[in-house]
Amino acid sequence: MYNIAILGASGYTGAELIRLISGHSSMQIKALGGNSKAGQSMAEVFPHLRHLDLPALVTIDDIDFSQIDLCFCALPHKTSQEVIAKLPADLKIVDLSADFRLRDPEAYKKWYGNDHAALDQQKEAVYGLTEFYREEIKAARLVAGTGCNAATGQFALRPLIAAGLIDLDDIIMDLKCAVSGAGRSLKENLLHAELSEGYHAYAIGGTHRHLGEFDQEFSAVAGRPVKVQFTPHLVPANRGILATCYVKGDALAIHGELEKVYADEPFIEVLPLGEAPSTRHIRGSNFCHVGVVQDRIDGRAIVVAALDNLTKGSSGQALQNANLMLDIAETEGLMMAPLFP
Amino acid sequence: MYNIAILGASGYTGAELIRLISGHSSMQIKALGGNSKAGQSMAEVFPHLRHLDLPALVTIDDIDFSQIDLCFCALPHKTSQEVIAKLPADLKIVDLSADFRLRDPEAYKKWYGNDHAALDQQKEAVYGLTEFYREEIKAARLVAGTGCNAATGQFALRPLIAAGLIDLDDIIMDLKCAVSGAGRSLKENLLHAELSEGYHAYAIGGTHRHLGEFDQEFSAVAGRPVKVQFTPHLVPANRGILATCYVKGDALAIHGELEKVYADEPFIEVLPLGEAPSTRHIRGSNFCHVGVVQDRIDGRAIVVAALDNLTKGSSGQALQNANLMLDIAETEGLMMAPLFP
Amino acid sequence: MYNIAILGASGYTGAELIRLISGHSSMQIKALGGNSKAGQSMAEVFPHLRHLDLPALVTIDDIDFSQIDLCFCALPHKTSQEVIAKLPADLKIVDLSADFRLRDPEAYKKWYGNDHAALDQQKEAVYGLTEFYREEIKAARLVAGTGCNAATGQFALRPLIAAGLIDLDDIIMDLKCAVSGAGRSLKENLLHAELSEGYHAYAIGGTHRHLGEFDQEFSAVAGRPVKVQFTPHLVPANRGILATCYVKGDALAIHGELEKVYADEPFIEVLPLGEAPSTRHIRGSNFCHVGVVQDRIDGRAIVVAALDNLTKGSSGQALQNANLMLDIAETEGLMMAPLFP
Amino acid sequence: MYNIAILGASGYTGAELIRLISGHSSMQIKALGGNSKAGQSMAEVFPHLRHLDLPALVTIDDIDFSQIDLCFCALPHKTSQEVIAKLPADLKIVDLSADFRLRDPEAYKKWYGNDHAALDQQKEAVYGLTEFYREEIKAARLVAGTGCNAATGQFALRPLIAAGLIDLDDIIMDLKCAVSGAGRSLKENLLHAELSEGYHAYAIGGTHRHLGEFDQEFSAVAGRPVKVQFTPHLVPANRGILATCYVKGDALAIHGELEKVYADEPFIEVLPLGEAPSTRHIRGSNFCHVGVVQDRIDGRAIVVAALDNLTKGSSGQALQNANLMLDIAETEGLMMAPLFP
Repeated sequence: MYNIAILGASGYTGAELIRLISGHSSMQIKALGGNSKAGQSMAEVFPHLRHLDLPALVTIDDIDFSQIDLCFCALPHKTSQEVIAKLPADLKIVDLSADFRLRDPEAYKKWYGNDHAALDQQKEAVYGLTEFYREEIKAARLVAGTGCNAATGQFALRPLIAAGLIDLDDIIMDLKCAVSGAGRSLKENLLHAELSEGYHAYAIGGTHRHLGEFDQEFSAVAGRPVKVQFTPHLVPANRGILATCYVKGDALAIHGELEKVYADEPFIEVLPLGEAPSTRHIRGSNFCHVGVVQDRIDGRAIVVAALDNLTKGSSGQALQNANLMLDIAETEGLMMAPLFP
Repeated sequence: MYNIAILGASGYTGAELIRLISGHSSMQIKALGGNSKAGQSMAEVFPHLRHLDLPALVTIDDIDFSQIDLCFCALPHKTSQEVIAKLPADLKIVDLSADFRLRDPEAYKKWYGNDHAALDQQKEAVYGLTEFYREEIKAARLVAGTGCNAATGQFALRPLIAAGLIDLDDIIMDLKCAVSGAGRSLKENLLHAELSEGYHAYAIGGTHRHLGEFDQEFSAVAGRPVKVQFTPHLVPANRGILATCYVKGDALAIHGELEKVYADEPFIEVLPLGEAPSTRHIRGSNFCHVGVVQDRIDGRAIVVAALDNLTKGSSGQALQNANLMLDIAETEGLMMAPLFP
Repeated sequence: MYNIAILGASGYTGAELIRLISGHSSMQIKALGGNSKAGQSMAEVFPHLRHLDLPALVTIDDIDFSQIDLCFCALPHKTSQEVIAKLPADLKIVDLSADFRLRDPEAYKKWYGNDHAALDQQKEAVYGLTEFYREEIKAARLVAGTGCNAATGQFALRPLIAAGLIDLDDIIMDLKCAVSGAGRSLKENLLHAELSEGYHAYAIGGTHRHLGEFDQEFSAVAGRPVKVQFTPHLVPANRGILATCYVKGDALAIHGELEKVYADEPFIEVLPLGEAPSTRHIRGSNFCHVGVVQDRIDGRAIVVAALDNLTKGSSGQALQNANLMLDIAETEGLMMAPLFP
Repeated sequence: MYNIAILGASGYTGAELIRLISGHSSMQIKALGGNSKAGQSMAEVFPHLRHLDLPALVTIDDIDFSQIDLCFCALPHKTSQEVIAKLPADLKIVDLSADFRLRDPEAYKKWYGNDHAALDQQKEAVYGLTEFYREEIKAARLVAGTGCNAATGQFALRPLIAAGLIDLDDIIMDLKCAVSGAGRSLKENLLHAELSEGYHAYAIGGTHRHLGEFDQEFSAVAGRPVKVQFTPHLVPANRGILATCYVKGDALAIHGELEKVYADEPFIEVLPLGEAPSTRHIRGSNFCHVGVVQDRIDGRAIVVAALDNLTKGSSGQALQNANLMLDIAETEGLMMAPLFP
């Protein structure tokens, strides 16, 4: 039984980690850190977890990390790097924030606006897109979970860019994100009365921070700079990301490549050619559905990927990585079926 | 490994059974029956289950029941009794329909409008409210799953009626049900455009069929006729039932009795006195949360129960019963945490 | 053309007033006050009003009230009394807050926790339930809009209490409120991710402040103290209140009385006996639908009322009262049909 | 006062027409046709209209068209052409179906699969995109309402294609449609339990019928064939269409052109450069908001348009056209503000 700590346990990704680990056969939660709600029980903070026998929330300073085998950091961006810089240097860590996703400190500063406060840790961090960094993750001490949008887009496009199957200069990704991706922060536009029954584009024109990840990863696999066009939309649903990608390439070849690359992946389902996924069919699960459709215009294809932002997009992915780091079966605790309806 | 058949696998309770059984350590799905969609794969009927290796849907006649250890019937009311009458007489069955809930054929006819077509089976059927019929269920061949509303109301009130703690002639139950309780039937008022952003009372005035169960069970435990007032409401959510029960009695005594009765129950959580549950905290799980609050008027209390209609209200309850019938741990496959947010 | 000022124009009831007045033939908006967002245009604060030619938001101190014929105060409770105390003594005011609803300063203090800071104005304030205070409102300088829940419950029950048709000691009101009733305040439980797909009771046990209004008004019409039991629930919808009232009395007599009392009311629709209303059928309108159903238990009836909390429950009611105060046709600007679907 | 008939009054666009006309100063509804629900009152079919004094539904054959000044046809596709072929040849008609949108019978057959059954009427029909066919509509007898998606996309792109400001061979339109656009038809995927909390692309790859309109209209204004890429998505909301259009051109020039073209339009609001619209800000209104944003990639812009599919997308547009045909002020009955929240 591995002892687990979760820092930032009062947010949505923290709660999702607890939900997943509660069904895991070889992990037990030993410490829950959450400075702002320290002293509260999880039954107060998240009544849906009241049936579980969980430690109360404590401040991070009050955690004895010598007892911990692996620590999930579900802290806000920027806070995460400050906290992780002070954690024991041999502690296995899966970070769910954006702090260690970008390898280049300059790129980090460009997208996040500040100098990185944990450059040493940044250097050793492995990018946590499991399906493409599996071996590195097994050997890693610090894994940086990918952005939820970044994961979705990469599941759709990364193999196609790597294989040279699509025009690298004309990739458009139109994302539709559910609201839990914005976290539990108190903002007017996240109120039910504001959001329900309406939807809109945001961070439009190429200003969303997850573009830093797309640029880094797509350029790396292409061996040359790749800049995609990316417009996220906020839709009135709680969980789910749908990435509709418009590419120039042959749909049949694209579909074949995705089927080949994901053939043995336990969580990536490639739909039959011509079918497109729905977020309702992956909710609450670690699965990602990918579909390919030929457009009526020759030489154009639409690739659509769907996943649950809190599961495969963050906490499920984090657990998948933790399994690898602890040499547990990769799918342990993650095979639950989606919740529908 | 027990071999399981599910009849009526193309409805919501059928899909929910498959979701739950997919995480069960000692059951495997051997046959899926669904006459109207026979020949289709489950990936077509329920794309969220496409990652599972499931048999295709077949007609019920095409199932070889000699290989089946236990059969779940998730068929529509009335169809269920006709089908079950023809199944092998020694086949263990958990029926999710309303057909075998009422012991008195007259009561059945009063509430459902037709003569019962399987009187022999009706006689041997055990009422499936696990927490109160545990021993009978262990020994049963045919268990009749309770109505989802009936289960919710009984979790709130049954111990209080049994203990004589409330006025039996003045019980009012105001239920708020989510829409999946109405099943996958094509009705105008179940369309998203009709239901979303609105709510209303239905079957108002005491015409809802689940009253047959309340009358039967509450009268049995009271040892005299008990008739409750019951008004269900349809609210724009997918899963969940919230029963707000207005009773005359002492809140402290009521709370104490519920705590005592449910002390060892794995799925019934009694909240601290003065707290009331929310459906959002049990979604997708087999848990039922019960709360008690003292009203400002002396001698009156409000008892509120919340559960997921598809899980604890039907398919989860059914699996709990099946576990007992097969001498498996009662909680096997059912301890997943709720999905929030 | 009457010149109108709205204080608190950056909240939902303020926006609703602007929506309604934009279609009014003899009112024009001259000033919009909102201290926290002073300096912003309404197109920034409420983009759905961007097609209107509206004054920018200013601080209340910057409004020249000598030009104003009538002022709507849509300010938070407690702020409202402080502001109104300083407004010109002859300015016609419709207040949408709770500050002037309770006539008895002791009752006010009991429910709101503080001494009233504008006792002079409190004395002259008229309770704004138009259908029952029409003549007083016509003559009033300061009208106190009713609580949205209080209005809904009174439309269902007030005539029955006045006529002595129901047992005054056994009235239970189970309300279901949409989320816009909680205003535009930043609270965790009002986030879309928290509220959507779940519902719960709150202020349970008789602690909701609108009980102060029920107690005052029901006792007044009964000529003796009347205390109702009242439990509000928050449901995942934006607009609407549904009050399900459980009473002891004769359904036929009750229905007849409601039909008689509301026969000439332009906004109160009594449904045929046996039918119950839905919030989806009054959304965005000033209508209130009332239905009566006989319960299966003799001598008991269920009275259900539905209205839109932002319209008939607050801003529509306020405009109706303002029309009376300015001697304009009572229905002017208020006859728009509900928005469905 | 003009006498109005509405055929197909039991669908959503029929109900929306009644809502709008109920606030119109010079139209009165004389006849409501709806074969499947003939004999029912509108209060039964649409309880939200119960406060209106409306004729009961009758069969179309029972309507005396000699008394009618203008007839709205809100019938299903294909039925509409059969009915209109038999109506009096001098009756002014606004058709809301797809039947008369395409001028070329071959194009009609290609997209709708059948030969047109009213070729004479098809010849005289005027395409009902008011802002671009105003003069033709004033003189028309039969106006064909545009598709709701087709209207949204044209408001975003038509002026840009006409002005030669964007690359005609690389236009991608990603639409997000609310569910009322699918009408009141009983389909499994329109059930609340299916649709709520999920979203997906449909008619993907260029098979949506509104492409017939885009092809016809964009090619006409460009003076050469233009084929756009178009992917609609269904999102869990009731009203609204958001068209996110990816174009190659200069954002500043694009924004300037849209501002110029729509400068005097009462219903088209061009947002400041860099801002994008939301469907929540046009719900229930006849307004269309259009925004332009420069992408981070040089030479690319995103144009986003939002409207309410039932209002500006169909019934509001139809009333706007009817106003022109009857020489009434174009905005009469259509200036109501959006409903938010």
